Amino acid sequence: MNTKFDLSYFTDRATVRSFKPEAPSRELIADLIRRAEHAPTTGGMQLYSVIETRSTEGLARLAPAHFNQPACTGAPVLLTFCVDLNRFSRWCELSDADPGFDNIQSFVYAGLDTALFAQQFVTLAELAGLGTCYLGTTTYNAPMIAEALELPRLVVPLLTVAVGWPTAPAEGAWRMEVDGVLCGERYPDRSDDDIRKLYAPLEDREDSRRFVAENGKDNLAQVFTDVRYTRQDNEYFSKVFSDFVKAQGF
Amino acid sequence: MNTKFDLSYFTDRATVRSFKPEAPSRELIADLIRRAEHAPTTGGMQLYSVIETRSTEGLARLAPAHFNQPACTGAPVLLTFCVDLNRFSRWCELSDADPGFDNIQSFVYAGLDTALFAQQFVTLAELAGLGTCYLGTTTYNAPMIAEALELPRLVVPLLTVAVGWPTAPAEGAWRMEVDGVLCGERYPDRSDDDIRKLYAPLEDREDSRRFVAENGKDNLAQVFTDVRYTRQDNEYFSKVFSDFVKAQGF
Repeated sequence: MNTKFDLSYFTDRATVRSFKPEAPSRELIADLIRRAEHAPTTGGMQLYSVIETRSTEGLARLAPAHFNQPACTGAPVLLTFCVDLNRFSRWCELSDADPGFDNIQSFVYAGLDTALFAQQFVTLAELAGLGTCYLGTTTYNAPMIAEALELPRLVVPLLTVAVGWPTAPAEGAWRMEVDGVLCGERYPDRSDDDIRKLYAPLEDREDSRRFVAENGKDNLAQVFTDVRYTRQDNEYFSKVFSDFVKAQGF
Repeated sequence: MNTKFDLSYFTDRATVRSFKPEAPSRELIADLIRRAEHAPTTGGMQLYSVIETRSTEGLARLAPAHFNQPACTGAPVLLTFCVDLNRFSRWCELSDADPGFDNIQSFVYAGLDTALFAQQFVTLAELAGLGTCYLGTTTYNAPMIAEALELPRLVVPLLTVAVGWPTAPAEGAWRMEVDGVLCGERYPDRSDDDIRKLYAPLEDREDSRRFVAENGKDNLAQVFTDVRYTRQDNEYFSKVFSDFVKAQGF
């Protein structure tokens, strides 16, 4: 491939959940965020903010919202990436313009902006030698996080990145063969066997088998549906998040 | 900074809206997608699919959904990145597991996965010398796109990337000073003057002034609220998108 970069980073990278105690400097984080701002953004509006938490009290306030998971409690810095239509709307109001961003469509495009920006930060941080871990709990406990970070109207936390110097090299995770996610022209009409074949290599992995045994389940899919991402949790946190997004003004 | 990479790409990059007619090969796109799959993903589930459109008929079917914008009609390849909870749910059903992913929380975490994956692809594509442009129209006209791509239940188009070899080097866009988006510990309590100062450099740009003049407005904020992202459009497309997400099973 014609590129001046060695792209092997992209396939070697993996999530890091264990960090050295010394925190990356404020200057380094700011430099990476400044670069990440050049990620694509709807209409150049940058409808996001990121809150940097590194104080002992601040980290302690956020930990319960992330279910005290080790990747959170062991991280020297947490970055909470938020949809922010507050800052832009205020600028509009100060300019005698009527901001009409208190709706779901604006939340969605701002949310996509926020995710692209967060991922650009993660790539930059990893290239600088840092380890990162997204905390998927952010949209579960958005109300608790918003209270801890004093988020105003039209600001919603969406992604949290735990960041620090890794204690060990990251170990790559399984990914599906490319035909499983890349489809030509139309969504494919797959047979049951096609579906089974896509996930068979994942089921065959040593760590998957251990997961199944540890959780006393018949197979890996049941670990996902009965333990990790249950219907009950998904439905409960759907209501919490929908109500919260509405309460924040959308 | 201690990195083996030259990070200047990240600040030099910019959106490309004009492409050479020859399309990047299928092999190149597949190779980049394969690498992009290593982006972080909730629970390793990869709750996304991407549809590659490069046939004349396929591109013509999608163009109206993207309001026939030049970045779309001039692109040799369109990649539509979709939330996909269909494939994973089918695997669960085939494994005698009950998939509870037909709800908003699952849509949100799958949506974030999809955006991180799309952005990883964009970075890889640009490092390989390709130009890219996100088409923000995807969540406006999701129903039309879903019909064109024959998307089944639990699949929703979220981001479209127009991709091709650029006709000219990308020109960087304005970004806010880092203090405008990076906040320490809590969301800041900004004065009106603080807000004005954040956007003043954008308003002072030559292209911003031209925008204001061309649209017959008093200032740049009014171009955003009265022309580009109006309350009326945002509210109309909020309803279209919300109804569509519900119709797709969420």
